[in-house]
Amino acid sequence: MRGEPLDAETIVSATEEVLRRHGPEKTTVLDVARLLGVSHGSVYRHFPSKAALREAVIRRWLDRVREDLAATVQDSELTPPDRLRGLLTAMFATKWTKAREDPELFATFRALAAEHSTVSSAHVAFLLAQIRAIVVDGIADGDFAAGEPDAIARAILNATSRFHDPTHAAEWHSPEVEAESTDVISLILNGIRTR
Amino acid sequence: MRGEPLDAETIVSATEEVLRRHGPEKTTVLDVARLLGVSHGSVYRHFPSKAALREAVIRRWLDRVREDLAATVQDSELTPPDRLRGLLTAMFATKWTKAREDPELFATFRALAAEHSTVSSAHVAFLLAQIRAIVVDGIADGDFAAGEPDAIARAILNATSRFHDPTHAAEWHSPEVEAESTDVISLILNGIRTR
Repeated sequence: MRGEPLDAETIVSATEEVLRRHGPEKTTVLDVARLLGVSHGSVYRHFPSKAALREAVIRRWLDRVREDLAATVQDSELTPPDRLRGLLTAMFATKWTKAREDPELFATFRALAAEHSTVSSAHVAFLLAQIRAIVVDGIADGDFAAGEPDAIARAILNATSRFHDPTHAAEWHSPEVEAESTDVISLILNGIRTR
Repeated sequence: MRGEPLDAETIVSATEEVLRRHGPEKTTVLDVARLLGVSHGSVYRHFPSKAALREAVIRRWLDRVREDLAATVQDSELTPPDRLRGLLTAMFATKWTKAREDPELFATFRALAAEHSTVSSAHVAFLLAQIRAIVVDGIADGDFAAGEPDAIARAILNATSRFHDPTHAAEWHSPEVEAESTDVISLILNGIRTR
């Protein structure tokens, strides 16, 4: 048994470790409690279920992703087209790296996305809002043609599904994926800029 | 036992029926033989495995899809932008209808696509060639900006994955999918047309 009081953050870190070892299917609350040297009741006091634990791990990862992406979007030295290119490139790279280097955590994220978990929907809403903010700035600056920012942002997210939607993860091992994503980003930027 | 000699086409039709009843996982060669009232040896004489049977069913469906789509592309009354819009719209509608109205056959197609079956790769190659042909015509007519037709066709197929890739079938039940696909097609057409 551990000396320190058990906090939620410690449990999330332990769950992350267990998920990496056993994968999302086989991980149990008992595994997490064992790694921490506590009873499973102690874990349940913070997280009511295995699903809640799994969500907390992915929420923490996505919080970090959002911080990094928001920094890309807010770089006011860049023009809106360059910011959009930067945001999309960073969005894709984050997903590809996680899928390759941390496959069990990525599989957990993928399962949540397939279940339409609020953690995953909130992340999509964040991405849409970031794209929309750049579209609004670009229209105001005259870089992008006038249009409905919500619909444009949604179309951009939809047109790049292949590069960020976890359902496509198996294709991200292809050596062509980077060049293909660059071509789609250029197509999109051409599609929204002022004529 | 049937009187007529058993031909491949009859076996493919019977397999289609069995797939609709039992789904791709549970269908066996014996089920097909039973429906035809023949020994499973008679089926094996035409198709060496369950996988070959499954492929033959999907190949026949895709052959029909290709005939219909090729007709769309070859309508020379229309401008290249209208032909591209027509081809993409028809491509999506065919997949959506199959996924909704013939879910077990669509699941069979989806399994083949996930396994990178030659039947599915050949279909992707066909779609790319059709898009490429319109892009070439559009560049020649001055409707589309100059560029590398292979890369442009690939980018168009990639930018529309959400609407034709079977991995997204669960999202095709959304009432918004049609409007969202229209917005992506407009984004693409804007992206490739001459400035």
